[in-house]
Amino acid sequence: MSRVAHPAGPRHADVLPAEHPPSPPEDLNALHPVIWPQSARRSDGVLTVGGLDVRDLAAEFGTPLFVCDEDDFRQRCRSYREAFGAQAGVFYAAKAFCCRGVLRWVTEEGLGVDVCTGGELEVALRAGVPPEMITLHGSNKLESELARALDAGVGHIVVDSFEEIARLAYLTDPPVPGRNGAGKNGNGAGGNAAGGPAAGGNGRASRPRVLVRVTTGVEAHTHEFVATAHDDQKFGFSLSSGAADEAVRRVLACPGVELAGLHSHIGSQIFDTDGFEAAARRVLGLAVRIRDEHGIMISELNLGGGLGIAYTPDDDPADVKVIAQNLHEIVRGQCAAAGVAMPRLTVEPGRAIAGPGTVTLYEVGTVKDVDGLRTYVSVDGGMSDNIRTALYDAEYTCVLASRESAAAPMLSRIVGRHCESGDIVVRDSYLPSDLVPGDLIAVAATGAYCRSMASNYNHVTRPAVVAVRDGGARLLLRRETIDDLLQLDAG
Amino acid sequence: MSRVAHPAGPRHADVLPAEHPPSPPEDLNALHPVIWPQSARRSDGVLTVGGLDVRDLAAEFGTPLFVCDEDDFRQRCRSYREAFGAQAGVFYAAKAFCCRGVLRWVTEEGLGVDVCTGGELEVALRAGVPPEMITLHGSNKLESELARALDAGVGHIVVDSFEEIARLAYLTDPPVPGRNGAGKNGNGAGGNAAGGPAAGGNGRASRPRVLVRVTTGVEAHTHEFVATAHDDQKFGFSLSSGAADEAVRRVLACPGVELAGLHSHIGSQIFDTDGFEAAARRVLGLAVRIRDEHGIMISELNLGGGLGIAYTPDDDPADVKVIAQNLHEIVRGQCAAAGVAMPRLTVEPGRAIAGPGTVTLYEVGTVKDVDGLRTYVSVDGGMSDNIRTALYDAEYTCVLASRESAAAPMLSRIVGRHCESGDIVVRDSYLPSDLVPGDLIAVAATGAYCRSMASNYNHVTRPAVVAVRDGGARLLLRRETIDDLLQLDAG
Repeated sequence: MSRVAHPAGPRHADVLPAEHPPSPPEDLNALHPVIWPQSARRSDGVLTVGGLDVRDLAAEFGTPLFVCDEDDFRQRCRSYREAFGAQAGVFYAAKAFCCRGVLRWVTEEGLGVDVCTGGELEVALRAGVPPEMITLHGSNKLESELARALDAGVGHIVVDSFEEIARLAYLTDPPVPGRNGAGKNGNGAGGNAAGGPAAGGNGRASRPRVLVRVTTGVEAHTHEFVATAHDDQKFGFSLSSGAADEAVRRVLACPGVELAGLHSHIGSQIFDTDGFEAAARRVLGLAVRIRDEHGIMISELNLGGGLGIAYTPDDDPADVKVIAQNLHEIVRGQCAAAGVAMPRLTVEPGRAIAGPGTVTLYEVGTVKDVDGLRTYVSVDGGMSDNIRTALYDAEYTCVLASRESAAAPMLSRIVGRHCESGDIVVRDSYLPSDLVPGDLIAVAATGAYCRSMASNYNHVTRPAVVAVRDGGARLLLRRETIDDLLQLDAG
Repeated sequence: MSRVAHPAGPRHADVLPAEHPPSPPEDLNALHPVIWPQSARRSDGVLTVGGLDVRDLAAEFGTPLFVCDEDDFRQRCRSYREAFGAQAGVFYAAKAFCCRGVLRWVTEEGLGVDVCTGGELEVALRAGVPPEMITLHGSNKLESELARALDAGVGHIVVDSFEEIARLAYLTDPPVPGRNGAGKNGNGAGGNAAGGPAAGGNGRASRPRVLVRVTTGVEAHTHEFVATAHDDQKFGFSLSSGAADEAVRRVLACPGVELAGLHSHIGSQIFDTDGFEAAARRVLGLAVRIRDEHGIMISELNLGGGLGIAYTPDDDPADVKVIAQNLHEIVRGQCAAAGVAMPRLTVEPGRAIAGPGTVTLYEVGTVKDVDGLRTYVSVDGGMSDNIRTALYDAEYTCVLASRESAAAPMLSRIVGRHCESGDIVVRDSYLPSDLVPGDLIAVAATGAYCRSMASNYNHVTRPAVVAVRDGGARLLLRRETIDDLLQLDAG
């Protein structure tokens, strides 16, 4: 248990860190199966995904290009659904990558969708995701977003602040002129426990089901987690201060909503379940207090997302079956110890579904040896299509994709075409020393938080995303043009 | 001289650093004149910019909103032009903030424009910037971008790699079938020194003027700089390896282009000229070698940008007059010592022009005390409209804008509405303890690298940018809509 260090003072992305380049891989042409999409192969030396030659994809759709292996994405949806079983709910976290095409896949594979803004909600609704399969998150939901979610009839709303509970109370049970003692701010009678009768003056058939987001003081990253007395972050209601208990009271006092359960999210890119165990213990402590104080048992426990994927050979994510079994055992054991009924367990994988099946194809523009230190390989994208390297010091794996090579390994840094020296796509990688401009390189596991966080820095237009499957390709998102950008320019 | 530390391992933006909150300011309502736009005032307690009440701006244009003080922007253009004198050229670095409206201001104030991609070039051309006033940068210019720049007749091209010199040679002097010994790759005779006769087989009236970007090993940030034997970055040609000398040889061997001079850029957010002095000495060493080897003197020396602005009261940027005087003295002195003629000095301010005159207006959505540690103030924007805090640990100053308050100071963290705990706009700030949802807060000095690096993370649409002046407001960039985003969605 330790906290990842963070510099105290101002940091500039274009100050480069001390170097610890990895050793070169045994085979520069190999595609490590955990890192690359399930359909990735070399055919006559050329990378293929979904049965398609990346040179043909580049020729048809241009570069940079996100190539998404549809079967890989769908298979991960199915693995989650099967591992967590019929009782559990799996909600795809749309923030990882959100477009109508993939939200349809998610729905077809039986998963729900977790959205955290009105924008993501709109895409989900326009994709035809059944509203009851949508969970609305967000630490600062606008009133307009809450109203849209209520009107659409989303399945769950995860409440994150007292202000939001008051807004929900107002929206679900607005004050009626001349009526006293009921309405705004939930002054009506309680009795809206999980499974209770529908209520509220809004004419809706059923009350929105609410989860209270709890901050447990447990924060997990990769192989480590830290459990503190408090949680210094913007999300949710603190357990340690009693805010979470108070939030439950206020939700229960809202006649227009139903308390479905509790929500906890402990971090990202997590490789084991120790942190979940610590968090679940704390959240279930609240569940026991709710039972004791209000006489009701929560019906749902949402443990959030955060399960890690392999970006490099050093990453070793656990099998989803093992994760699911561990989480169930943790919750079952703790419920038994606390003497409470087992709630329905729900999870929200995003990166674990969308991440591994997508690669980014780039064309090499320049190959520059710098003072014998390393070779800078410039590609036709950069921090505008992958900010994760600069933002999180994320690591990636890449290969020469348009051909194979027997040349010696060359310590390389894959950089973009932005006017900033922090514009790095892959900090340390080995590529064949016969690399030349015009070669295509592929960066693995770019399906999550790359296109979704993409910018137009330097007026670089955002790449297309194409889905590939069984030798066919179709666009999910088309490439942006400079005219798209100028549509916002008032002249 | 020391290098800013950077963590060696993976870093996650949502792991929060050790805290060193500043002391509360004496007056929470004060507007420090170096930090805020020149026209920023309080009128009956309410922030006004360009004579306009921010509450009216928020009502008309919505929030979040970038409010740009046009007179501030124009005044900084004039200050640069006046300080650097008629001999010097000042080029606005469009990457800081690029739209047609501000590029017109820049042109009207007599500055040139530095662009670093085809996208920025297109905006400049459509804004009516005279092509000869445009400098094209970029570490990996696409061949199509070079061709467009040549066709448009841009004033300068800053070459950054041997591949690019070869592309320029090809584009400006393409091989003619049946003609041997001239054309591609500059096999023709030399003699294209600065001021030499026009040449090349491309039918253009004048040859494009080329600057060779030199990496000097000098890297500067804020109050510190480091000068090393080499420069571990993607840009330019290394002095230490001899690559810069070779680049000059190859440019001189291209009949279709003219060597105008040398270019050096040493970093960003720099507060004194020590780093420039070290860099200029090294670059002028190359100028002497060019004279000795080729018998010509460069006519231009471009020292790039990087001059800092005040984000907080701790930042103390030097006056542009002092900077200009120092740079001229440095170059004059070193030219005299080396016995070479003084070249024309050019600079490329971006942040220093665009940064200080713009503020971001946000509406407060939630005010959450977390365990007595601090108060999290959620606003209706976040890392999608200002990634600099998460990306660079940048610091900002903010105030309650829609009213003044005599309430006690409250240690606050201004956070956004994205689903990520690293979504921080201002890490540490004091706001009045009577802050409530619906209040407007203004964050200062957001004119550079905020809207230009903005994303649609979580499908949050990008804010409008409005120019204010003399009590009037007009849109520079309109607010994005969810329908704009869905235009790229292939369905």
